[in-house]
Amino acid sequence: MKVLVNDQLLERDQAFVDIEDRGYQFGDGVYEVVRLYNRRFFTFNEHIDRLYESAAKIELAIPFSKDTLRELLTTLVKENDIHTGNVYLQVSRGIQMPRNHIIPDDFPLEGVLTASTTEVPRNLEKFVSGGSAITAEDVRWLRCDIKSISLLGNIMAKNKAHKAGALEAILHRGDIVTECSASNVMIIKDGELWTHQSDNLILNGITRQVILDVARKNGITVHEADFTLADLHGADEVFISSTTLEITPITAIDGTVIGNGLRGPISARLHELYEQEVIRQCGEFEAVK
Amino acid sequence: MKVLVNDQLLERDQAFVDIEDRGYQFGDGVYEVVRLYNRRFFTFNEHIDRLYESAAKIELAIPFSKDTLRELLTTLVKENDIHTGNVYLQVSRGIQMPRNHIIPDDFPLEGVLTASTTEVPRNLEKFVSGGSAITAEDVRWLRCDIKSISLLGNIMAKNKAHKAGALEAILHRGDIVTECSASNVMIIKDGELWTHQSDNLILNGITRQVILDVARKNGITVHEADFTLADLHGADEVFISSTTLEITPITAIDGTVIGNGLRGPISARLHELYEQEVIRQCGEFEAVK
Repeated sequence: MKVLVNDQLLERDQAFVDIEDRGYQFGDGVYEVVRLYNRRFFTFNEHIDRLYESAAKIELAIPFSKDTLRELLTTLVKENDIHTGNVYLQVSRGIQMPRNHIIPDDFPLEGVLTASTTEVPRNLEKFVSGGSAITAEDVRWLRCDIKSISLLGNIMAKNKAHKAGALEAILHRGDIVTECSASNVMIIKDGELWTHQSDNLILNGITRQVILDVARKNGITVHEADFTLADLHGADEVFISSTTLEITPITAIDGTVIGNGLRGPISARLHELYEQEVIRQCGEFEAVK
Repeated sequence: MKVLVNDQLLERDQAFVDIEDRGYQFGDGVYEVVRLYNRRFFTFNEHIDRLYESAAKIELAIPFSKDTLRELLTTLVKENDIHTGNVYLQVSRGIQMPRNHIIPDDFPLEGVLTASTTEVPRNLEKFVSGGSAITAEDVRWLRCDIKSISLLGNIMAKNKAHKAGALEAILHRGDIVTECSASNVMIIKDGELWTHQSDNLILNGITRQVILDVARKNGITVHEADFTLADLHGADEVFISSTTLEITPITAIDGTVIGNGLRGPISARLHELYEQEVIRQCGEFEAVK
């Protein structure tokens, strides 16, 4: 298997970064995960645009143009023969010796790109059966709109859920539900969709954006607004969304069943619409049962 | 110059980590900076104890015993002939392929230790003249008690200060002053010392602890309690503390002079007491003028 380190395609076991890369010492970098279906990227431009936006927010210079990045990643996924899978890419701020919080202004650091791929089939069974979630106080920083690699807060929440046998941790600040450790969360109540507004408290997921777009185009009322833990527990349907999870139902939260404990009709309808968008960009695939 | 990667002493330009080290992809690790005076470690045990405490809080296993760590770091600083300087060490959770937020429970990851040294003379001039600071909203996560490498929030604050020509960013949550981007902050008012209590909102600096200890032993009243931005701006003396900065006066904040704009008498007295503690552990050195 090959990986990218800057513009070099390397064997996986030959790919290293410097111990004084700011990504390693400060979590100083940004990342994206882009999905492929039928060997084609889904929402590629949206992901790459967001990568550049995250980088701009922390004044990090991406070392390649968007076109070059597309070429490099296309070469990588072809080389690794990825059919249905993910490409992970991150750009760290680069090497600085000795370690110093201050980014030097007398010379620019060279950002370091790394990228790797994983074949990840669609989890059709999980898309229908769903999974459970716990709730946890959102202790992350107040710039969750930046898709940064400083992810320890997310890690801790995700592993708390994992230890509880749950798929995800749904995070809340006080009474307000924000998002999950590695996905967005949406609820359906009386036929309408609620999800936290896109601000500094959540990452505006690309999958989230596709879902909200197809929902609106198909007559489902969308509220991008605060909703509470009580709203969450009392919802008719709850689902989480991410590049890999697509739309995955949450059928129990903190041990309490949501709705009738099965994937709800609006979740199912939204997943159909989502798949149509995937098919439009990437061609036909096996449908969610 | 040599560096440590696990228990291997390597030439600096031969030291790398895997691109899928969780330290690089998730900021999943902890660190310390230990100071040497006269080739001797200062407050070594306190730093190493805190490293283990930070690691325990994120359930990361340090791959060496405290004794072995001391041996490794002692070899490193001798090899690099460090007289007055810093040893930086971090332990990341180790390599996981493919990348996954979830830490596998079927096999333990091997933590990766890296360490390097820098000769850093005491900045005697700065210890007297001090520097300026800006104030900035504290947007970091709510577990600042963990000395983690997920530091992007700290980086952004530090560089905001740097761009404003200031030495540090003094952070506040709403009206309450917490700490700085890479140091603690203390104020003197009517002869008494105030600094934020040690809780989840600050890192309990080792230098902070030494200062509070010598202050109490020498009859200076210490308040580990909330104080406000107004208290900060209206203080008689303000200083910041860290392993390298020791006690550095802040003589102006947001462009407004603090006190008479000079290092205050209690700051000076505390630095004398701090030096006595350094001398006790590491032997005589040139005194702060």
